[in-house]
Amino acid sequence: MGTHATTLGFEARLDRLAELAVRVGLNLAPRQEVVMTASVESIDLARRITEQAYKAGASLVTTLFSDEQATLARYRLARDEAFDTAPGWLFDGMAAAFRNGAARLAIVGEDPALLAAEDPDKVARANRARSAAYRPALELITASAINWSLVAGATPAWAAAVFPDEPPEVALAKLWDAIFAASRIDAPDPVAAWAEHNAALRARRDMLNARRYAALHFRGPGTDLRVGLAQGHAWMGGASPAKNGITGNPNIPTEEVFTTPDARMTEGTVTATKPLSYQGTLIRDIRVRFAGGRIVEASAATGSAVLDRMIGTDEGARMLGEVALVPASNPIARSGVLFLNTLFDENAASHIALGQAYSKCFVEDDLTAEQLAARGANTSLIHVDWMIGSPETEVDGIDADGRAEPLMRGGEWVK
Amino acid sequence: MGTHATTLGFEARLDRLAELAVRVGLNLAPRQEVVMTASVESIDLARRITEQAYKAGASLVTTLFSDEQATLARYRLARDEAFDTAPGWLFDGMAAAFRNGAARLAIVGEDPALLAAEDPDKVARANRARSAAYRPALELITASAINWSLVAGATPAWAAAVFPDEPPEVALAKLWDAIFAASRIDAPDPVAAWAEHNAALRARRDMLNARRYAALHFRGPGTDLRVGLAQGHAWMGGASPAKNGITGNPNIPTEEVFTTPDARMTEGTVTATKPLSYQGTLIRDIRVRFAGGRIVEASAATGSAVLDRMIGTDEGARMLGEVALVPASNPIARSGVLFLNTLFDENAASHIALGQAYSKCFVEDDLTAEQLAARGANTSLIHVDWMIGSPETEVDGIDADGRAEPLMRGGEWVK
Repeated sequence: MGTHATTLGFEARLDRLAELAVRVGLNLAPRQEVVMTASVESIDLARRITEQAYKAGASLVTTLFSDEQATLARYRLARDEAFDTAPGWLFDGMAAAFRNGAARLAIVGEDPALLAAEDPDKVARANRARSAAYRPALELITASAINWSLVAGATPAWAAAVFPDEPPEVALAKLWDAIFAASRIDAPDPVAAWAEHNAALRARRDMLNARRYAALHFRGPGTDLRVGLAQGHAWMGGASPAKNGITGNPNIPTEEVFTTPDARMTEGTVTATKPLSYQGTLIRDIRVRFAGGRIVEASAATGSAVLDRMIGTDEGARMLGEVALVPASNPIARSGVLFLNTLFDENAASHIALGQAYSKCFVEDDLTAEQLAARGANTSLIHVDWMIGSPETEVDGIDADGRAEPLMRGGEWVK
Repeated sequence: MGTHATTLGFEARLDRLAELAVRVGLNLAPRQEVVMTASVESIDLARRITEQAYKAGASLVTTLFSDEQATLARYRLARDEAFDTAPGWLFDGMAAAFRNGAARLAIVGEDPALLAAEDPDKVARANRARSAAYRPALELITASAINWSLVAGATPAWAAAVFPDEPPEVALAKLWDAIFAASRIDAPDPVAAWAEHNAALRARRDMLNARRYAALHFRGPGTDLRVGLAQGHAWMGGASPAKNGITGNPNIPTEEVFTTPDARMTEGTVTATKPLSYQGTLIRDIRVRFAGGRIVEASAATGSAVLDRMIGTDEGARMLGEVALVPASNPIARSGVLFLNTLFDENAASHIALGQAYSKCFVEDDLTAEQLAARGANTSLIHVDWMIGSPETEVDGIDADGRAEPLMRGGEWVK
């Protein structure tokens, strides 16, 4: 994580990231098809991942490139009624590919401020239409039907948002350095480093699963939050087996262990410890109060209109779908970089997510939708992580009899 | 066509091409969705078309970018069994979009020699898999169920193939100039120029439809070919109404009038007058003999293995699906540029196509598959145009009683 700095050049590090995405992220099986999504700005990394996937035996790699300039053109030029349209035909196609056994790789790297100046109503409508259309594909991912993985590629716009005071080339180089470090690319053998890291996450996960807590209690500045955990919940983290039998790493990087709360049993107040970059808008200083599982008060210093629209997406958007524990001392937090991207920032701190729950976070496999609902697993068009942990965070585990055990103090695991 | 050369800069000409693609090519209707395909090399033109489409009222423009580097990576790195795989999920998605009313725009600009060094067996298998998977979408296009259009974008690799003796920047500029000229971009008002051009093609088409010839007879160096025309055939050319009620220009540029032959009634020998660029390979000096409608002998000076595989795709691949008349004096031919791309080269000369027939080229609408087959309309996974016209070409129209009328002499219309 930067401590193993090498003299590897940029191209070699990019190839290592591509190899890691295929071998560790997807753990691609021979003859598997790959569906990749990437910004056109990330074409260099996409090409290297394509090469690594074919080397690993992929039958076909199809990359669906997105273009933020085209997105902006729509906001600036399209008629109002256009914003309720989404490419359902494309998302249904992706879902069909997943059902047919394809693996899914996404290169993330959005401009965090892309839509900051656009009409929030149009942004919300476009996102709602897109989320609804994408749902069949997303459900296969959240249920771990297939092996899938997110990796990151730096882009000029993202780098400029993260390092606004640096010249463009310096900002881009610094963001790449931060991505490579967080992704353990600079370890002598990144694949081996990930095996070691996965083992450590597994040990933490196994400890929590042995405890079977009924709830977690978070305390910190502006936070006093009790999160009930779903009956039969299972903690996950690091490498995880998909239902197709392949064990990959859905996120590169990842530092979290996480599980599914009982969405009806969230009580109290929580204050975000980092800004949330949500679909083009930066929401700062989120503070919400839960009662009976639902957000009943919400405020933010900036982006509060977007926050209101986000939690108004549907009923599940104002309830929890995930809770995750991350020690404050982890490498991403230590880097001091606010990435303005959930893939990194959620791994810098303990966090909660509003919206769709992971059905895989249960001891039993293949619970029905009715069984999941009975245990309080949330459903929603959205799944939005936001950070609530800091070096001041205290977390207790609460057992079925209401006894509290200290889990984290000063943001760190107590044992 | 180059005679109206203006002082417009490159950006302005690119915007004109984009506007022409949307207003004349698609004649996009308000609230229509657009599915665009483009090389990542053509992203600048794709973005301008996206802007023009939103200005014209598009609800959503989705561009599926292809990347020739990824295609090459597959040939160089993938296992042998990979070459029978195609992204059917993506093509089925496109077909669903078309059935749902989307318009289809393609920016063409392939490297004509991309696959020249690859194993012809792999190329043929990959193309066969791709053609079979694309068929549901292609059928909606060939039946004119929707408004669709092809326009061209110059790329460095294409330009290098067309102008191999020029430095890269000069080659690219010359290819753009040739595309702009052929697409009537340099006319004072391109949209008006296309209205005039469409009217001229319509007059020629109406003349041929009034004649109702039973066959055409082509003569020239190495060519003595009789092409039977399908009973009830209709000549088309220029702007044409799709079944969704929208009249667009499926090809920009276009100089041809064309119809559907009775595939069983092709007899004689024909020699290509220009090289054929087929899916990455340049096939030179094609010479084939038809008997009873089928190719019974085929040769080529280069690329004969690819030619053999092409006509071996399926039974219909060795029979005709289209015949088209183009005067030798047309602007594309006069430019002297061999574009190595069918969109242009087919408009430089009279031509025939092997493979799938256009079901729309009949007087009656909506003939059933059985009725089409009874009239000799060909079916195939492929549709490949190749040029047989030159300034030495003579064409006669043969009426039902076998009487010949001169249609073209010295490559030009006789009236």
